[in-house]
Amino acid sequence: MIDSVEIIGLIAAILTTLAFIPQVIKVISTNSSKGLSLTTFIIFIIGVILWFIYGIFKSSISMILGNGITFFLALIIIVYIIKNKKTNL
Amino acid sequence: MIDSVEIIGLIAAILTTLAFIPQVIKVISTNSSKGLSLTTFIIFIIGVILWFIYGIFKSSISMILGNGITFFLALIIIVYIIKNKKTNL
Repeated sequence: MIDSVEIIGLIAAILTTLAFIPQVIKVISTNSSKGLSLTTFIIFIIGVILWFIYGIFKSSISMILGNGITFFLALIIIVYIIKNKKTNL
Repeated sequence: MIDSVEIIGLIAAILTTLAFIPQVIKVISTNSSKGLSLTTFIIFIIGVILWFIYGIFKSSISMILGNGITFFLALIIIVYIIKNKKTNL
């Protein structure tokens, strides 16, 4: 059974994960990552990997699922930023 | 005493928090939030508030501190996006 605290975590995980979808859509549809900081997303994705590991130790389904998906969304953004930087060289 | 799992969480919190600093600097120094999705940051900040509450229930110092600071960094970005949208009207 999922307790009420875990439900807060689950909603938090869903929100901080879904949050990146509009940004990913914006980057893909405009084919531009202008304005986005590469440093931010690289530091962020390393943090997300550590949160994922932390979630495994804390047996937190919310953290494992949320950070797992956020990892892939942040990765898409990073790929676009690097691709755009290369194009602009 | 902080255990080794909590150290992973602490580093994760530090990284996902510090991550937003280059983005905040970019937004402030260029005085532009172009390319940043307002929807992303609004959904994200609500998620961060819930992670903060979840951290209190889980007695996780990393989550409380990390999400507390991330809240303020995300808030700065949101204020800039809205300010920029108004200027562009």
